[in-house]
Amino acid sequence: MNYSSKYLEKAVDEIGQLPGIGRKTALRLALFLLRQEKEQVHSLSHSLTDLKEKVIYCRSCGNLSDRELCEICANPSRDQSLVCVVEDIRDVMAIENTGQFKGIYHVLGGVISPMEGIGPSDLNIQGLIEKAEQGKLREVIFAMGSTMEGETTTFYLYKKLMTHTITLTAIARGIAVGDQLEYADEITLARSITNRIPYEASLKQNS
Amino acid sequence: MNYSSKYLEKAVDEIGQLPGIGRKTALRLALFLLRQEKEQVHSLSHSLTDLKEKVIYCRSCGNLSDRELCEICANPSRDQSLVCVVEDIRDVMAIENTGQFKGIYHVLGGVISPMEGIGPSDLNIQGLIEKAEQGKLREVIFAMGSTMEGETTTFYLYKKLMTHTITLTAIARGIAVGDQLEYADEITLARSITNRIPYEASLKQNS
Repeated sequence: MNYSSKYLEKAVDEIGQLPGIGRKTALRLALFLLRQEKEQVHSLSHSLTDLKEKVIYCRSCGNLSDRELCEICANPSRDQSLVCVVEDIRDVMAIENTGQFKGIYHVLGGVISPMEGIGPSDLNIQGLIEKAEQGKLREVIFAMGSTMEGETTTFYLYKKLMTHTITLTAIARGIAVGDQLEYADEITLARSITNRIPYEASLKQNS
Repeated sequence: MNYSSKYLEKAVDEIGQLPGIGRKTALRLALFLLRQEKEQVHSLSHSLTDLKEKVIYCRSCGNLSDRELCEICANPSRDQSLVCVVEDIRDVMAIENTGQFKGIYHVLGGVISPMEGIGPSDLNIQGLIEKAEQGKLREVIFAMGSTMEGETTTFYLYKKLMTHTITLTAIARGIAVGDQLEYADEITLARSITNRIPYEASLKQNS
Protein backbone atom coordinates (compact mmCIF):
# COMPACT_ATOMS: atom_id res chain seq x y z
CA MET A 1 0.00 0.00 0.00
CA ASN A 2 1.29 3.45 -0.98
CA TYR A 3 0.40 5.86 1.82
CA SER A 4 2.04 8.95 0.20
CA SER A 5 3.31 9.92 3.66
CA LYS A 6 5.61 8.02 5.99
CA TYR A 7 3.92 9.66 8.98
CA LEU A 8 0.55 8.36 7.83
CA GLU A 9 2.05 4.91 7.30
CA LYS A 10 3.62 4.94 10.78
CA ALA A 11 0.32 6.00 12.38
CA VAL A 12 -1.56 3.25 10.52
CA ASP A 13 1.08 0.72 11.64
CA GLU A 14 0.75 1.81 15.26
CA ILE A 15 -3.04 2.00 15.36
CA GLY A 16 -3.25 -1.35 13.54
CA GLN A 17 -1.45 -3.03 16.45
CA LEU A 18 -4.38 -2.41 18.78
CA PRO A 19 -6.51 -5.52 19.38
CA GLY A 20 -9.46 -5.92 17.02
CA ILE A 21 -8.28 -3.11 14.70
CA GLY A 22 -7.07 -4.15 11.25
CA ARG A 23 -5.20 -2.03 8.72
CA LYS A 24 -8.34 -0.80 6.94
CA THR A 25 -9.87 0.42 10.20
CA ALA A 26 -6.50 1.89 11.23
CA LEU A 27 -6.37 3.87 7.98
CA ARG A 28 -9.95 5.06 8.49
CA LEU A 29 -9.09 6.23 12.04
CA ALA A 30 -5.87 7.94 10.89
CA LEU A 31 -7.73 9.83 8.14
CA PHE A 32 -10.39 10.79 10.69
CA LEU A 33 -7.71 12.21 13.00
CA LEU A 34 -6.16 14.14 10.08
CA ARG A 35 -9.49 15.92 9.64
CA GLN A 36 -9.75 16.86 13.33
CA GLU A 37 -8.45 20.00 15.04
CA LYS A 38 -4.83 19.87 16.21
CA GLU A 39 -5.91 20.33 19.85
CA GLN A 40 -8.15 17.30 19.68
CA VAL A 41 -5.41 15.02 18.35
CA HIS A 42 -2.97 16.36 20.97
CA SER A 43 -5.52 15.73 23.67
CA LEU A 44 -5.91 12.08 22.56
CA SER A 45 -2.15 11.66 22.29
CA HIS A 46 -1.51 13.12 25.78
CA SER A 47 -4.26 11.08 27.35
CA LEU A 48 -2.54 7.90 26.13
CA THR A 49 0.82 8.98 27.54
CA ASP A 50 -0.78 9.98 30.85
CA LEU A 51 -2.65 6.67 30.96
CA LYS A 52 0.60 4.71 30.84
CA GLU A 53 2.66 7.05 33.03
CA LYS A 54 0.26 8.03 35.79
CA VAL A 55 -2.09 5.11 36.36
CA ILE A 56 -0.77 2.69 38.99
CA TYR A 57 -2.10 -0.33 40.83
CA CYS A 58 -3.51 0.16 44.32
CA ARG A 59 -1.00 -1.15 46.90
CA SER A 60 -3.79 -2.72 48.93
CA CYS A 61 -6.24 -4.26 46.45
CA GLY A 62 -4.62 -4.24 43.00
CA ASN A 63 -7.30 -2.02 41.47
CA LEU A 64 -6.27 0.77 39.09
CA SER A 65 -5.61 4.04 40.85
CA ASP A 66 -4.02 7.47 40.52
CA ARG A 67 -2.62 7.26 44.06
CA GLU A 68 -0.92 4.58 46.17
CA LEU A 69 -4.27 3.62 47.71
CA CYS A 70 -7.29 3.57 45.40
CA GLU A 71 -10.38 5.67 46.14
CA ILE A 72 -12.28 2.65 47.41
CA CYS A 73 -9.56 1.40 49.83
CA ALA A 74 -8.94 4.97 51.05
CA ASN A 75 -12.64 5.62 51.71
CA PRO A 76 -13.25 5.43 55.51
CA SER A 77 -16.96 4.72 55.00
CA ARG A 78 -16.26 1.44 53.20
CA ASP A 79 -16.15 -1.71 55.36
CA GLN A 80 -12.48 -2.79 55.23
CA SER A 81 -13.27 -6.19 56.76
CA LEU A 82 -15.61 -7.21 53.91
CA VAL A 83 -13.61 -8.09 50.79
CA CYS A 84 -15.01 -9.02 47.39
CA VAL A 85 -12.45 -11.01 45.36
CA VAL A 86 -12.68 -10.45 41.58
CA GLU A 87 -10.63 -11.43 38.55
CA ASP A 88 -10.33 -8.11 36.83
CA ILE A 89 -10.69 -4.36 37.31
CA ARG A 90 -13.67 -4.44 34.92
CA ASP A 91 -15.45 -6.56 37.54
CA VAL A 92 -14.83 -3.81 40.11
CA MET A 93 -16.45 -1.29 37.77
CA ALA A 94 -19.41 -3.60 37.16
CA ILE A 95 -20.06 -4.19 40.88
CA GLU A 96 -19.50 -0.50 41.75
CA ASN A 97 -22.11 0.35 39.12
CA THR A 98 -24.74 -1.57 41.10
CA GLY A 99 -24.15 0.73 44.09
CA GLN A 100 -24.95 -2.25 46.37
CA PHE A 101 -21.56 -3.19 47.75
CA LYS A 102 -20.09 -1.25 50.67
CA GLY A 103 -16.95 -3.29 51.34
CA ILE A 104 -13.62 -3.22 49.51
CA TYR A 105 -12.25 -5.31 46.63
CA HIS A 106 -9.32 -7.55 45.96
CA VAL A 107 -8.35 -7.77 42.27
CA LEU A 108 -6.50 -10.98 41.37
CA GLY A 109 -5.49 -9.80 37.91
CA GLY A 110 -6.59 -13.08 36.32
CA VAL A 111 -7.46 -16.66 37.23
CA ILE A 112 -5.43 -19.85 37.66
CA SER A 113 -5.15 -21.39 34.20
CA PRO A 114 -2.66 -24.25 33.70
CA MET A 115 -3.47 -24.19 29.96
CA GLU A 116 -2.13 -20.63 29.71
CA GLY A 117 0.64 -21.24 32.22
CA ILE A 118 -0.90 -18.98 34.87
CA GLY A 119 -0.33 -20.31 38.40
CA PRO A 120 -1.23 -18.85 41.83
CA SER A 121 2.15 -17.06 42.00
CA ASP A 122 1.27 -15.05 38.88
CA LEU A 123 -1.81 -13.60 40.58
CA ASN A 124 -2.26 -10.89 43.21
CA ILE A 125 -3.05 -13.36 46.02
CA GLN A 126 -0.38 -12.72 48.68
CA GLY A 127 -1.89 -9.44 49.87
CA LEU A 128 -5.24 -11.12 50.53
CA ILE A 129 -3.59 -13.93 52.55
CA GLU A 130 -1.66 -11.36 54.61
CA LYS A 131 -4.83 -9.43 55.42
CA ALA A 132 -6.41 -12.71 56.54
CA GLU A 133 -3.39 -13.60 58.72
CA GLN A 134 -3.48 -10.17 60.34
CA GLY A 135 -7.09 -10.85 61.35
CA LYS A 136 -8.36 -7.92 59.30
CA LEU A 137 -11.10 -9.81 57.47
CA ARG A 138 -14.62 -10.65 58.58
CA GLU A 139 -16.03 -11.94 55.29
CA VAL A 140 -14.57 -12.75 51.89
CA ILE A 141 -16.97 -12.90 48.91
CA PHE A 142 -15.72 -14.93 45.95
CA ALA A 143 -16.96 -13.24 42.75
CA MET A 144 -14.92 -14.97 40.06
CA GLY A 145 -16.52 -15.91 36.74
CA SER A 146 -18.24 -19.30 36.70
CA THR A 147 -15.74 -20.81 34.26
CA MET A 148 -13.56 -23.85 34.98
CA GLU A 149 -10.63 -21.50 35.72
CA GLY A 150 -12.75 -19.22 37.88
CA GLU A 151 -14.04 -22.14 39.95
CA THR A 152 -10.49 -23.55 40.32
CA THR A 153 -9.22 -20.19 41.55
CA THR A 154 -12.12 -19.88 43.99
CA PHE A 155 -11.40 -23.37 45.36
CA TYR A 156 -7.68 -22.55 45.71
CA LEU A 157 -8.46 -19.40 47.72
CA TYR A 158 -11.05 -21.28 49.77
CA LYS A 159 -8.39 -23.82 50.82
CA LYS A 160 -5.97 -21.02 51.72
CA LEU A 161 -8.51 -19.02 53.75
CA MET A 162 -10.61 -21.77 55.39
CA THR A 163 -8.15 -22.17 58.28
CA HIS A 164 -8.91 -18.61 59.41
CA THR A 165 -12.10 -17.56 61.19
CA ILE A 166 -13.48 -15.74 58.14
CA THR A 167 -16.93 -16.14 56.61
CA LEU A 168 -16.35 -17.34 53.05
CA THR A 169 -19.22 -16.72 50.61
CA ALA A 170 -19.77 -16.93 46.86
CA ILE A 171 -22.01 -14.70 44.73
CA ALA A 172 -25.38 -16.24 43.84
CA ARG A 173 -25.77 -18.02 40.50
CA GLY A 174 -29.25 -18.18 39.05
CA ILE A 175 -31.69 -16.96 36.44
CA ALA A 176 -30.91 -13.37 35.46
CA VAL A 177 -33.55 -10.79 36.37
CA GLY A 178 -35.89 -10.44 33.37
CA ASP A 179 -34.93 -13.81 31.84
CA GLN A 180 -37.38 -16.52 30.76
CA LEU A 181 -36.91 -19.91 32.43
CA GLU A 182 -37.22 -21.82 29.16
CA TYR A 183 -34.06 -20.22 27.78
CA ALA A 184 -31.88 -20.88 30.86
CA ASP A 185 -29.37 -23.74 30.77
CA GLU A 186 -30.08 -26.70 33.09
CA ILE A 187 -27.12 -26.15 35.42
CA THR A 188 -28.07 -22.54 36.12
CA LEU A 189 -31.72 -23.54 36.57
CA ALA A 190 -30.76 -26.38 38.95
CA ARG A 191 -28.57 -24.01 40.99
CA SER A 192 -31.31 -21.42 41.18
CA ILE A 193 -33.65 -24.04 42.66
CA THR A 194 -31.07 -25.39 45.11
CA ASN A 195 -30.20 -21.88 46.30
CA ARG A 196 -33.80 -20.68 46.57
CA ILE A 197 -34.57 -17.94 49.09
CA PRO A 198 -37.69 -17.10 51.12
CA TYR A 199 -40.25 -15.35 48.89
CA GLU A 200 -40.60 -12.50 51.37
CA ALA A 201 -36.86 -11.80 51.12
CA SER A 202 -37.08 -11.67 47.31
CA LEU A 203 -40.07 -9.32 47.53
CA LYS A 204 -37.98 -6.94 49.62
CA GLN A 205 -35.21 -6.96 46.97
CA ASN A 206 -37.64 -6.07 44.19
CA SER A 207 -38.83 -2.93 45.89
CA MET B 1 -19.10 4.14 35.51
CA ASN B 2 -16.42 4.28 38.22
CA TYR B 3 -13.01 4.06 36.52
CA SER B 4 -10.97 4.36 39.77
CA SER B 5 -8.58 6.64 37.87
CA LYS B 6 -9.25 9.97 36.22
CA TYR B 7 -6.48 9.29 33.71
CA LEU B 8 -8.15 6.05 32.68
CA GLU B 9 -11.47 7.86 32.41
CA LYS B 10 -9.91 10.61 30.27
CA ALA B 11 -8.29 8.06 27.96
CA VAL B 12 -11.57 6.15 27.59
CA ASP B 13 -13.34 9.45 26.82
CA GLU B 14 -10.80 10.36 24.16
CA ILE B 15 -10.59 6.92 22.51
CA GLY B 16 -14.39 6.65 22.60
CA GLN B 17 -14.65 9.73 20.35
CA LEU B 18 -13.08 7.88 17.43
CA PRO B 19 -15.63 6.78 14.81
CA GLY B 20 -17.00 3.28 15.29
CA ILE B 21 -15.48 2.92 18.77
CA GLY B 22 -17.90 2.85 21.70
CA ARG B 23 -17.10 3.19 25.39
CA LYS B 24 -16.76 -0.58 25.98
CA THR B 25 -14.25 -0.93 23.15
CA ALA B 26 -12.48 2.23 24.33
CA LEU B 27 -12.12 0.72 27.81
CA ARG B 28 -10.81 -2.54 26.32
CA LEU B 29 -8.24 -0.61 24.26
CA ALA B 30 -7.19 1.54 27.26
CA LEU B 31 -6.68 -1.56 29.42
CA PHE B 32 -4.71 -3.17 26.58
CA LEU B 33 -2.44 -0.11 26.42
CA LEU B 34 -1.97 -0.21 30.21
CA ARG B 35 -0.55 -3.73 29.84
CA GLN B 36 1.90 -2.73 27.09
CA GLU B 37 5.48 -1.48 27.49
CA LYS B 38 5.87 2.25 28.05
CA GLU B 39 7.86 2.60 24.79
CA GLN B 40 5.04 1.10 22.77
CA VAL B 41 2.44 3.50 24.15
CA HIS B 42 4.80 6.46 23.61
CA SER B 43 5.39 5.34 20.05
CA LEU B 44 1.63 5.25 19.37
CA SER B 45 1.13 8.62 21.06
CA HIS B 46 3.94 10.27 19.06
CA SER B 47 2.79 8.81 15.78
CA LEU B 48 -0.60 10.49 16.29
CA THR B 49 0.99 13.88 17.03
CA ASP B 50 3.31 13.53 14.03
CA LEU B 51 0.38 12.53 11.84
CA LYS B 52 -1.44 15.76 12.61
CA GLU B 53 1.63 18.04 12.63
CA LYS B 54 3.69 16.76 9.71
CA VAL B 55 1.27 15.43 7.11
CA ILE B 56 0.21 18.14 4.65
CA TYR B 57 -1.75 18.24 1.39
CA CYS B 58 0.18 18.26 -1.89
CA ARG B 59 0.10 21.78 -3.38
CA SER B 60 -0.48 20.37 -6.85
CA CYS B 61 -2.93 17.48 -6.50
CA GLY B 62 -4.36 17.56 -2.96
CA ASN B 63 -3.02 14.12 -2.05
CA LEU B 64 -1.49 13.58 1.41
CA SER B 65 2.21 14.25 1.52
CA ASP B 66 5.17 14.91 3.80
CA ARG B 67 6.49 17.61 1.45
CA GLU B 68 4.98 20.49 -0.54
CA LEU B 69 4.76 18.27 -3.64
CA CYS B 70 3.72 14.64 -3.11
CA GLU B 71 5.92 11.77 -4.27
CA ILE B 72 3.72 11.14 -7.29
CA CYS B 73 3.64 14.76 -8.52
CA ALA B 74 7.38 15.13 -7.86
CA ASN B 75 8.24 11.95 -9.79
CA PRO B 76 9.68 12.95 -13.21
CA SER B 77 8.84 9.54 -14.71
CA ARG B 78 5.09 10.09 -14.22
CA ASP B 79 3.14 11.63 -17.10
CA GLN B 80 2.13 15.09 -15.82
CA SER B 81 -0.33 15.61 -18.71
CA LEU B 82 -2.45 12.56 -17.79
CA VAL B 83 -4.57 13.29 -14.71
CA CYS B 84 -6.87 10.86 -12.91
CA VAL B 85 -9.52 12.72 -10.87
CA VAL B 86 -10.62 10.92 -7.70
CA GLU B 87 -12.80 11.73 -4.70
CA ASP B 88 -10.52 10.70 -1.90
CA ILE B 89 -6.91 9.86 -1.04
CA ARG B 90 -8.01 6.28 -0.44
CA ASP B 91 -8.81 6.09 -4.14
CA VAL B 92 -5.23 7.15 -4.92
CA MET B 93 -3.95 4.29 -2.74
CA ALA B 94 -6.30 1.83 -4.43
CA ILE B 95 -5.25 2.82 -7.97
CA GLU B 96 -1.55 2.98 -7.02
CA ASN B 97 -1.91 -0.58 -5.71
CA THR B 98 -2.79 -1.79 -9.21
CA GLY B 99 0.56 -0.49 -10.51
CA GLN B 100 -1.17 0.24 -13.85
CA PHE B 101 -1.43 4.02 -13.83
CA LYS B 102 1.57 6.14 -14.81
CA GLY B 103 0.01 9.61 -14.78
CA ILE B 104 -0.71 11.87 -11.81
CA TYR B 105 -3.83 12.35 -9.67
CA HIS B 106 -6.14 15.14 -8.69
CA VAL B 107 -7.89 14.60 -5.34
CA LEU B 108 -11.19 16.49 -5.01
CA GLY B 109 -11.59 15.80 -1.30
CA GLY B 110 -15.23 14.79 -1.74
CA VAL B 111 -18.09 15.06 -4.24
CA ILE B 112 -20.78 17.63 -4.91
CA SER B 113 -23.67 16.82 -2.57
CA PRO B 114 -26.47 19.38 -2.14
CA MET B 115 -27.98 17.14 0.56
CA GLU B 116 -24.86 17.59 2.73
CA GLY B 117 -24.36 21.18 1.63
CA ILE B 118 -21.18 20.44 -0.33
CA GLY B 119 -20.88 22.58 -3.46
CA PRO B 120 -18.12 22.88 -6.09
CA SER B 121 -16.42 25.65 -4.07
CA ASP B 122 -15.92 23.25 -1.15
CA LEU B 123 -13.91 20.89 -3.32
CA ASN B 124 -10.33 21.04 -4.63
CA ILE B 125 -11.36 21.88 -8.21
CA GLN B 126 -9.64 25.22 -8.95
CA GLY B 127 -6.16 23.70 -9.33
CA LEU B 128 -7.42 21.30 -11.99
CA ILE B 129 -9.10 24.09 -13.97
CA GLU B 130 -5.89 26.15 -13.80
CA LYS B 131 -3.81 23.27 -15.14
CA ALA B 132 -6.31 22.91 -18.01
CA GLU B 133 -6.17 26.65 -18.79
CA GLN B 134 -2.38 26.57 -18.81
CA GLY B 135 -2.58 23.84 -21.49
CA LYS B 136 -0.77 21.34 -19.27
CA LEU B 137 -3.29 18.52 -19.68
CA ARG B 138 -3.60 15.96 -22.48
CA GLU B 139 -6.15 13.61 -20.90
CA VAL B 140 -8.32 13.74 -17.79
CA ILE B 141 -9.74 10.44 -16.49
CA PHE B 142 -12.84 10.77 -14.30
CA ALA B 143 -12.65 8.07 -11.61
CA MET B 144 -15.36 9.13 -9.16
CA GLY B 145 -17.61 6.55 -7.53
CA SER B 146 -20.70 5.63 -9.52
CA THR B 147 -23.11 7.19 -7.04
CA MET B 148 -25.55 9.98 -7.81
CA GLU B 149 -23.11 12.49 -6.25
CA GLY B 150 -20.12 11.02 -8.08
CA GLU B 151 -21.92 11.24 -11.44
CA THR B 152 -23.02 14.83 -10.72
CA THR B 153 -19.46 15.85 -9.89
CA THR B 154 -18.14 14.13 -13.03
CA PHE B 155 -20.70 15.99 -15.16
CA TYR B 156 -19.82 19.31 -13.50
CA LEU B 157 -16.12 18.81 -14.27
CA TYR B 158 -16.95 17.64 -17.81
CA LYS B 159 -18.79 20.93 -18.45
CA LYS B 160 -15.87 22.93 -17.04
CA LEU B 161 -13.21 21.10 -19.06
CA MET B 162 -15.00 20.39 -22.38
CA THR B 163 -14.12 23.80 -23.78
CA HIS B 164 -10.41 22.90 -23.69
CA THR B 165 -8.72 20.54 -26.13
CA ILE B 166 -8.37 17.77 -23.57
CA THR B 167 -9.40 14.14 -24.00
CA LEU B 168 -11.97 13.45 -21.28
CA THR B 169 -12.47 9.79 -20.33
CA ALA B 170 -14.26 7.84 -17.59
CA ILE B 171 -13.13 4.58 -16.00
CA ALA B 172 -14.90 1.47 -17.34
CA ARG B 173 -17.92 0.15 -15.42
CA GLY B 174 -18.70 -3.52 -15.85
CA ILE B 175 -18.70 -6.97 -14.33
CA ALA B 176 -15.84 -7.34 -11.84
CA VAL B 177 -13.12 -9.83 -12.78
CA GLY B 178 -14.04 -13.19 -11.21
CA ASP B 179 -17.74 -12.31 -10.83
CA GLN B 180 -20.67 -14.42 -12.06
CA LEU B 181 -23.03 -12.69 -14.50
CA GLU B 182 -26.15 -13.92 -12.69
CA TYR B 183 -25.27 -11.95 -9.56
CA ALA B 184 -24.58 -8.64 -11.36
CA ASP B 185 -27.21 -5.89 -11.30
CA GLU B 186 -28.91 -5.06 -14.62
CA ILE B 187 -27.44 -1.58 -15.00
CA THR B 188 -23.87 -2.83 -14.61
CA LEU B 189 -24.59 -5.73 -16.97
CA ALA B 190 -26.15 -3.39 -19.55
CA ARG B 191 -23.16 -1.05 -19.36
CA SER B 192 -20.73 -3.92 -19.74
CA ILE B 193 -22.50 -4.94 -22.98
CA THR B 194 -22.69 -1.40 -24.34
CA ASN B 195 -19.01 -0.80 -23.61
CA ARG B 196 -17.82 -4.14 -24.99
CA ILE B 197 -14.26 -4.30 -26.33
CA PRO B 198 -12.66 -6.43 -29.07
CA TYR B 199 -12.01 -9.95 -27.71
CA GLU B 200 -8.39 -9.81 -28.82
CA ALA B 201 -7.86 -6.70 -26.70
CA SER B 202 -9.34 -8.44 -23.66
CA LEU B 203 -7.10 -11.49 -24.29
CA LYS B 204 -4.08 -9.21 -24.13
CA GLN B 205 -5.22 -7.79 -20.75
CA ASN B 206 -5.58 -11.23 -19.21
CA SER B 207 -2.02 -12.26 -19.92
